[in-house]
Amino acid sequence: MKKAYQEMSKDELLALKNRLEKDFEDAKGMGLKLDMSRGKPCPSQLVMGMDILDTLTSESDMKALDGVDTRNYGVMDGLPEAKELLAGMMGVKPENVIVFGNASLPIMYDTISRSMTHGVMGSTPWCKLDQVKFLCPVPGYDRHFAITQHFGIEMIAVPTTDEGPDMDMIEKLVAEDESIKGIWCVPKYSNPLGISYSDETVRRFANLKPAAKDFRIFWDNAYAVHHLYDDRQDEILEILSECEKAGNPDMVYEFCSTSKISFAGAGVAAMAASVANLDFVRKSMTIQTIGYDKINQLRHVRYFKNMDGVKAHMRKHADLLRPKFEAVQEVLERELAGLGIGSWTKPNGGYFISFDAMEGCAKNIVAKCKEAGVVLTNAGATYPYGIDPKDTNIRIAPSFPTPDEMAKATDLFVLCVKLVSVEKLLAQD
Amino acid sequence: MKKAYQEMSKDELLALKNRLEKDFEDAKGMGLKLDMSRGKPCPSQLVMGMDILDTLTSESDMKALDGVDTRNYGVMDGLPEAKELLAGMMGVKPENVIVFGNASLPIMYDTISRSMTHGVMGSTPWCKLDQVKFLCPVPGYDRHFAITQHFGIEMIAVPTTDEGPDMDMIEKLVAEDESIKGIWCVPKYSNPLGISYSDETVRRFANLKPAAKDFRIFWDNAYAVHHLYDDRQDEILEILSECEKAGNPDMVYEFCSTSKISFAGAGVAAMAASVANLDFVRKSMTIQTIGYDKINQLRHVRYFKNMDGVKAHMRKHADLLRPKFEAVQEVLERELAGLGIGSWTKPNGGYFISFDAMEGCAKNIVAKCKEAGVVLTNAGATYPYGIDPKDTNIRIAPSFPTPDEMAKATDLFVLCVKLVSVEKLLAQD
Repeated sequence: MKKAYQEMSKDELLALKNRLEKDFEDAKGMGLKLDMSRGKPCPSQLVMGMDILDTLTSESDMKALDGVDTRNYGVMDGLPEAKELLAGMMGVKPENVIVFGNASLPIMYDTISRSMTHGVMGSTPWCKLDQVKFLCPVPGYDRHFAITQHFGIEMIAVPTTDEGPDMDMIEKLVAEDESIKGIWCVPKYSNPLGISYSDETVRRFANLKPAAKDFRIFWDNAYAVHHLYDDRQDEILEILSECEKAGNPDMVYEFCSTSKISFAGAGVAAMAASVANLDFVRKSMTIQTIGYDKINQLRHVRYFKNMDGVKAHMRKHADLLRPKFEAVQEVLERELAGLGIGSWTKPNGGYFISFDAMEGCAKNIVAKCKEAGVVLTNAGATYPYGIDPKDTNIRIAPSFPTPDEMAKATDLFVLCVKLVSVEKLLAQD
Repeated sequence: MKKAYQEMSKDELLALKNRLEKDFEDAKGMGLKLDMSRGKPCPSQLVMGMDILDTLTSESDMKALDGVDTRNYGVMDGLPEAKELLAGMMGVKPENVIVFGNASLPIMYDTISRSMTHGVMGSTPWCKLDQVKFLCPVPGYDRHFAITQHFGIEMIAVPTTDEGPDMDMIEKLVAEDESIKGIWCVPKYSNPLGISYSDETVRRFANLKPAAKDFRIFWDNAYAVHHLYDDRQDEILEILSECEKAGNPDMVYEFCSTSKISFAGAGVAAMAASVANLDFVRKSMTIQTIGYDKINQLRHVRYFKNMDGVKAHMRKHADLLRPKFEAVQEVLERELAGLGIGSWTKPNGGYFISFDAMEGCAKNIVAKCKEAGVVLTNAGATYPYGIDPKDTNIRIAPSFPTPDEMAKATDLFVLCVKLVSVEKLLAQD
């Protein structure tokens, strides 16, 4: 039975510190150079997907199902078959989908940007308002927060549990404050927690009564089909139909992409929303673009064919990713369980494991890891403005290194967690 | 020798009108269904370019020259070799280039949108100003005007001659009015005139002394390599270096794409500007995107290799386009020369021929053509707000139909020009 650090005497802690410092010096000597900072697919995943490039050749019929020539101008909002494929990923109807370019981040950015300059379905442009606020469930995705910060939108952090964000707090805030115009959500295998919203959470989202008519839920369903296991898969309620049932059909924008299905940065991305929302989006779109890359849309549709094709492909990704997640979990469990110096999530999908250190330790742990050659996401990145008030959260991204490298990197990580925790406890005396 | 319509007696005009009306009824009976409305590549051009799809297969090395894996995240502003290729098209240095997504229109839209929300290199965001104006050389490109109109920017039309826009007027206006923040230019084989700016015009642009520090020239070099002939090619001065020489290094944004080189809507597009401008753009870009489609960039670079490759490819496009332009010119010359009811441009490149009818006739000509099955760009489209004050300009886009169809369509067009002109002259009596 392990002893929790908090129960150790000062002498025990000092002895432990000496040993850990020696281990850390040894670790530094190993010359590690590993990156667990971003949710990047690994080379094997990229090699696995290469045959998508053979889908379209100079011999291919380049016409879409409706006869449109994908090599020419036209079709602003996506090929019908591309809408259908991406609708399938989100569990919505094709008429609720617009297919855009190579990634979903620019769609989200454009959605905020358009709201700033043109409002939302007839509302006052946000740039004309004195104050615009967004709710940000934490820990969350740094790039979401970066967008709202870039546009001068005030961010309010909302804590998250296993079930999703704190709905009591959200319900209260949106009902009271008309300047709250949106909330960032990653509802499935969330970044970085890896949790999925419970049915009750989704229903409470759909039933929100925001003071602002132009309040929108930004539902970034980035990991909709990104399961790690065959037998343990999270599923969430489909938000568009829940919003419709609740009499709030226009309250949500959903986003998804194939960035972590086909190729990162060379996929296709989509937005799902009510037809009224999409019609408003199309008004700006028709000025902004003649159309996105339909050849790449056709390539994806011909390659994946349908949702069965997507699911079969995702199983291959899972086979490559699972050992890495398991390597991390194994080391964390073996080295940290029972020590009282950290807790972590055990997601069934997605790209991240979220680690919570003792208060005030996250930054130092990340710095120590870096000193020994392991790069983690900056501590604080998972919070608005990059500030984690308790300095506890660290996002672990196991996808890029090999399972063996991941085990080594986690060995170093737990060593740093122990060392920083001991130092913290000694400093508290 | 033909007699100008203006010199005809009323009886002559009436007789002519009867004959033309009969011809028009016959023409309607032919059941034409031709589209000369947009600068769309034709099917033969698309077939000609199909082998670009064989450039990357599942066997390809997907690394860029600097070792970056094009299948993964990263490289926000373009592969180095893609920058070099597109820099070559614009005659600028690669460090002055950012490569974006599939088309240049969204880059221009985003540039205006960013100026609205974030200003230009530190200036007040345009959405915070009472008034923002743009100069619009006319006739010009309807999609440019649509962007500025969408953002509530007031447009001021500037007439154009063979040498380019009226520089006296432009110099005076930009020096006097700080609310003038930009000007739309298509400097080479302009849309729709097909003219190219003279060296003096380009130098006067580079030497502008705008009252607004955040004034920018939007230099849409859409037809940089789009010659129709081997022996008659327009060349224009390179604007970035001219601006630098004139002490105005930051005054211009240049845009180009491969939409009419590889595939329309599935090409790559770029912006060229001073490093200071690009650094400011990158500040927003780093929030907006992780990166554009690098695989498509690689595909283009591997296929075209360099500017010689681009030029050889453009010769094939020219061989397909030239007969269409010549078919139009032949009919216009044969049927309308000397009649005093229309004039037209004879461009050496680009995608358009611009026709000027007698005042007050353009709308009726376009309507008559439509009645008999030939679709032209809406009259007025080449002017801000869709309003051509003299109702004279018609844009002819010969690229899409076959040469034979183009000749037939132009036969109908000249018939409609004659008929509407006769009606106009009779009504004036």
